[in-house]
Amino acid sequence: MVKIAVDAMGGDHGPGITVYGASLAMQENPELECLLFGEPKQVEEALPDFADPNRMEIIAADEVITDDDDPLRAVRRKKGSTIVKGLRAVAEREADAFVSAGSSGAIYAGGLFLIGADPEIKRPAAVSVLPTVSEASPYYMLIDSGANIAAKTEHLVEYARLGSRMAEQLLNIRNPRVGLLNIGSEPSKGNAFTKEAFQLLAAENELNFTGNVEPSVLLNGTHDIILTDGFTGNIMLKSVEGAAEILLNDLLRNVKKDGHLDENAEKVLAEAVETSIKRYTNEDIGGGFILGIKAPVVITHGAADAVMFKHSVEMAARLAHNPVFNGR
Amino acid sequence: MVKIAVDAMGGDHGPGITVYGASLAMQENPELECLLFGEPKQVEEALPDFADPNRMEIIAADEVITDDDDPLRAVRRKKGSTIVKGLRAVAEREADAFVSAGSSGAIYAGGLFLIGADPEIKRPAAVSVLPTVSEASPYYMLIDSGANIAAKTEHLVEYARLGSRMAEQLLNIRNPRVGLLNIGSEPSKGNAFTKEAFQLLAAENELNFTGNVEPSVLLNGTHDIILTDGFTGNIMLKSVEGAAEILLNDLLRNVKKDGHLDENAEKVLAEAVETSIKRYTNEDIGGGFILGIKAPVVITHGAADAVMFKHSVEMAARLAHNPVFNGR
Repeated sequence: MVKIAVDAMGGDHGPGITVYGASLAMQENPELECLLFGEPKQVEEALPDFADPNRMEIIAADEVITDDDDPLRAVRRKKGSTIVKGLRAVAEREADAFVSAGSSGAIYAGGLFLIGADPEIKRPAAVSVLPTVSEASPYYMLIDSGANIAAKTEHLVEYARLGSRMAEQLLNIRNPRVGLLNIGSEPSKGNAFTKEAFQLLAAENELNFTGNVEPSVLLNGTHDIILTDGFTGNIMLKSVEGAAEILLNDLLRNVKKDGHLDENAEKVLAEAVETSIKRYTNEDIGGGFILGIKAPVVITHGAADAVMFKHSVEMAARLAHNPVFNGR
Repeated sequence: MVKIAVDAMGGDHGPGITVYGASLAMQENPELECLLFGEPKQVEEALPDFADPNRMEIIAADEVITDDDDPLRAVRRKKGSTIVKGLRAVAEREADAFVSAGSSGAIYAGGLFLIGADPEIKRPAAVSVLPTVSEASPYYMLIDSGANIAAKTEHLVEYARLGSRMAEQLLNIRNPRVGLLNIGSEPSKGNAFTKEAFQLLAAENELNFTGNVEPSVLLNGTHDIILTDGFTGNIMLKSVEGAAEILLNDLLRNVKKDGHLDENAEKVLAEAVETSIKRYTNEDIGGGFILGIKAPVVITHGAADAVMFKHSVEMAARLAHNPVFNGR
């Protein structure tokens, strides 16, 4: 069994999305149990008919931490919040992992404060598991996708070491290929930060470091782990998500405007575009997690729908089995 | 009339592409004259039948500067190269602008050394004119897209001032909307660099500074000028170009594999995908130019084809009429 602590109130849509999404995950995975943290009446009302009452427990938590709260102060003071109660359940081993669509700053701060930092990682990073068009390498891990925006080069080495150990189980591969995100492929390319990081990574004998990689090729599945500082990683993530959504929709609009396809063909294309957008805006994956906290903590989009939230819960369950978190 | 100095030898394909591309631009624009710098026999052989001999002059230049040369040393020593001779022609007012698909480092260094720096700009930037899906705002200027990778915040203010003055003629707009590329829209978001740049830009009364902007929305045509350091700008540029090419091709491949479209519909879709890729990998625009050199210097991809090179020559011609370069 694996038990997930779910923040039922976080995100733009609350229990209607989170409770339904968690129930979908449980329906598909009979090994899964959930602790649902939230306002009990709202959570109960949101439970779908197919939900299995034997594998879920509702735990009252009615304080709310918003994006306007100072993250660290909020997790210290709002002890009755879903985020604090959910993270505490993981800290006290009542649950194996935590999932929330709430304030990422508070989840990050609360994870460190309540569960504790992994001693191998000085500054935790956000990991996004991102899609590629390759059947052989359908996903890669972007570390850092937006948490540690003032990263030092030695942080990237720590991410590479721990990330490589996680990737084997998480991506189902061996000897993960680690690349450094840069504006050119030669070792001399980039700014002072990437040049120094390159040298440090190249000196690590245990890593399968393949050198610099430009963002233009990543979607082809050339790498398993991409290292970068949180600012650059977030710029890349949002550039790709934006391009996927806007350009695929633009293609559909242009084809419709030209009027050369019949109604049925337009429908086929519209469905293919929707499938691609879901995949490349990362709805199919469900969110990111924090590298550097002793237990799995998954953060998903505030705007996540039930299917995306379901995928977040599934990622948390998968992370709970990762060797990196075993024996914590 | 406007006279463009063309590096006929630069790029992966040489005169077969550059001379043909320049001839196409001249065919469409009767105001255009070209000085073609290169190995005379090769240039002559590459001239298409429709080329107008009265509007072009071939100037012998047989030394070659490669990407392996040290840029500054190469422009100092290789005085017989197409890059040095072409830039010198602009410096001596024999031509209004320079276009090359050659070594961008040498063109950048040579532009500063031979033509001279604009006193308003301390460290020149690369400007890419990038496409959007908006009919009302089909293009925006990304400053810097990859030249000044160790930018200071005050450089961005200089880019904003000069860029705003250029945008009116170049993009055919008034009061250009200037945004700061960042990982969140609130003023407090980002790293130390973006926070400081935000404050400096907000204090400029002459600018139409609209605040921070995330890369996820740029393709919608929300802005006319986007400011960033050259490292981040280049990461964004390559992320979007890569996503456009890879994801649109992937969509086409998936639709074909599913087999729900007939042959004719597949052909319609393939053509629409090709058109989109050409637009969003910037082939339709032709290249970038250097902001901070006293005359227009356009740099295009080494891999540019004749149509892309034609667009580069057209951009150079348009820049030659920009008020910023008038009266130099």
